[in-house]
Parts: sequence; C-alpha cells; structure tokens
Amino acid sequence: MARDPFRLIAQAQAEYARCIDDDRLEAWPDFFAASCVYKITTAENLREGLEAGIIFANSRDMLRDRVSALREANIYERQSYRHILGQPCILSDDGAEVRSETSFLVMRTVQDGDSQIYATGRYLDVYAISGESAKLRERIVVCDSSRINTLLAIPL
Amino acid sequence: MARDPFRLIAQAQAEYARCIDDDRLEAWPDFFAASCVYKITTAENLREGLEAGIIFANSRDMLRDRVSALREANIYERQSYRHILGQPCILSDDGAEVRSETSFLVMRTVQDGDSQIYATGRYLDVYAISGESAKLRERIVVCDSSRINTLLAIPL
Amino acid sequence: MARDPFRLIAQAQAEYARCIDDDRLEAWPDFFAASCVYKITTAENLREGLEAGIIFANSRDMLRDRVSALREANIYERQSYRHILGQPCILSDDGAEVRSETSFLVMRTVQDGDSQIYATGRYLDVYAISGESAKLRERIVVCDSSRINTLLAIPL
Repeated sequence: MARDPFRLIAQAQAEYARCIDDDRLEAWPDFFAASCVYKITTAENLREGLEAGIIFANSRDMLRDRVSALREANIYERQSYRHILGQPCILSDDGAEVRSETSFLVMRTVQDGDSQIYATGRYLDVYAISGESAKLRERIVVCDSSRINTLLAIPL
Repeated sequence: MARDPFRLIAQAQAEYARCIDDDRLEAWPDFFAASCVYKITTAENLREGLEAGIIFANSRDMLRDRVSALREANIYERQSYRHILGQPCILSDDGAEVRSETSFLVMRTVQDGDSQIYATGRYLDVYAISGESAKLRERIVVCDSSRINTLLAIPL
Repeated sequence: MARDPFRLIAQAQAEYARCIDDDRLEAWPDFFAASCVYKITTAENLREGLEAGIIFANSRDMLRDRVSALREANIYERQSYRHILGQPCILSDDGAEVRSETSFLVMRTVQDGDSQIYATGRYLDVYAISGESAKLRERIVVCDSSRINTLLAIPL
C-alpha cells in the first residue's frame, strides 16, 4: 500500500488515546520522538500569545519524569478517562513531517458515578513519519476552557 | 490512489468542523456547491413530515448572507464550539454524487466555564464529488432534541 | 482495492451505530455471525475477573430474542440515542479474524430535553472478515461506569 499519512496518523491517535484510557501511562512517552515538545495550554492563552502553557516538556525523558511523578502522587481515586477523537485534518506534509490538527473530547468517570465532560479542545501536532512509524515531534494540546485544574492529573 | 469517496468525505467533514470551531465562518459557505440546500431541523419534525426546518437556505449566497447576519448580531460572549463527528456511512454513490450520513456531537464552552453538550444529531448529506473535491450539494442537519434555541447562533 | 480491515471495521462500526440510533433494532443482530458472543460488562467487573456481565448472549438468535423482548416491554418514552465512536485500534489480524478495540460514547436525548451522557466505554471485538463482509464473532461492551441501569434498554 502506498504511504498514507492520514491513515498512519489516525491509527497513531487511536493508539495514543487507548494507551491513556487503559492507564498504561508508562507507554505514553513512546508516542513521542526523543526530542519533542509537549505542551498543554488554553485557547485563550494561545489567542493572547501567552507562551507559558500549563504543562511543558521538551524531551521524551521529561515526559517519563512526569509519569513517574504522577504515579508517586497518585491518589487512588477510582476514576477513568475516555478520549474520543475526531478525524485528523492534515495541514501540511513535506514527506518527513506532517502537521495535523485533531479535535478531542475527554470524559471522566468516577467508578460508581456518572460520566462527565472533562476537557474538549484540539491537538496541534507535528508528526515525524518514517516508513510505518509516526512519532510526535510536537503536540500542543489546546483546551477550549480556561478553567483547567492546574493539578491536571493525566496527560491529554 | 484510486478514487475513494469515503476518505474524501471523512476529510471534508473534518475540515468543515474545524472551520466552524475555529470561528472562520466566512469560509464555511465554501464547503457547499453554488446551488445547494442547507437545512437545520429536528428528528421529530422529520418523523412527522414537517418540511419547515429551523433554518433553511438554498444557495451558497444565502449561506454567506447568514454569516454576515451572524457577525452583525454578534454578542461578544466568549464561547466556543467543538464538533466531534462519527465516521460517515456511505448510503449511495453514482460516481458523481454520494449520499452519506454522519453522526455529530457539538459541545459548547464558555471561556471560563464548563463544557456542555450543545447538540447531537446527524447530517444527511449529498456530496458532489469531482476529482479530489467534495462539495455539499445538500446538508440536512437533524438534531435529536426538539428543544433548539431558535436563535441558534452558529452553523451546525 | 487491497483488503483493508481497518476500513472494513470502521465502516461496520459506523453502520452498527446508525442501526441502533435509527431504532432499527430488528436489523441489529445481522451485524453478528450466527455463532457469536455479545456481552455488556463494566471495567470494574473485567478488572476483578468477574465473568458474569450484565447482558450475555451466545448466538444471533439470542440477540433476536432480546430485541423482541425489548419491543414488547417498550415504554413509549420519547428518547433517542446517539453513538459517537473513535477509530478502531487493530490489535491482531490473522487474515480471517481481526481483533480490535474501539472507544464509544453514547448520548441520550429525551425528545424535548437536553442530551446527556448515557454511557462511555470500549468495544472489545472479534470480527470475522470474508471478502467485503465483516461480522462480529464477539463483542464485549465494557462500560466505564459501574452504575449501569440493569434494565438497560438498548443494545450498546
């Protein structure tokens, strides 16, 4: 089959979401290239040119550290997350790097309770494509709401 | 790559949603053919054979007029929308026109507040396909709830 | 076009969801092989190795019986459902059977009311693939919440 970045990215997104929702956070950094940017910010900050972000990492090792910190801090509240993603929009493709944008919705469920909307927004991604492998070189997570828990537990 | 209407439509849908969610409403009519039907109605109206609809347009120019009206009426409430679409179901394909049906969920977020479900329903679409271009010749937006704000602000 | 299980399954899922959301429940068993397993359970039960499940069927005929029972018991409350599914993750593919996992979100709308989240979770599927046909040999529906109405009306 010919190289198909849309398909590769759609599958990478689905596996990324599954990894987090299954609480296999130790595998989450493997979706990124060794040198990468991961940032969580809000639509308001982005609009106002505020660079800071709520969470920032610029290497896969920093992502691993973050997972370790999350595990240590873990309050054993029984809750689970469910990502539902839209189709990726391919914005550019130079053969090695593909820029894409994908809407997301994340719901949170406390074990015996209702499911609630936890976050909505979009991923601004740069994927490094090589053969059948698609790794995130950059993921900016832009949340629609500015009211984000700064102790934000899980990766988005 | 061979002609692939499923893929073309999936991508057109993703770009349509992104256009609205990014508040680039002036570009929204370009997803339609010059001669087109756009209607918002409810499942109940559809079931009872009521043709009226809540919003109706039968040309791309009418869609442009609607965007102008929305911009003039714009109350600068800080809110944003997020469309999450299902995969399209291809119902028929005669080589030039493809009928499809796609479920949607739209959430609304007030800037500092929670995200809420704004609308759910399905798109009943007729796409005119030509080469790599897919334009909407008809979109009937069928909302699941009959309790729709008749001042309905944004396109769905 | 070459055999493409991802596409086949994505389309089968979209048609499955549409069948239920359109309230064409009599057609729902046709998405399954004659000999099949259908089960609804919760993430908690699955984690604790509890096999029971809330709903269990091991043939297409049992699914037909279930639909008949639902129709007889039908309380004509005006409500509708809307499934939004993620992309399938293909877990294995031996040429005849494909294992996949897909996240779902189901919303419920009472005719004149708001839409609410009804269930979130994931499908653990085994699809039997033959030519262009994809039939479910097994579907385990794992709900994120343990608080599930045991009178659970519709198929998930």
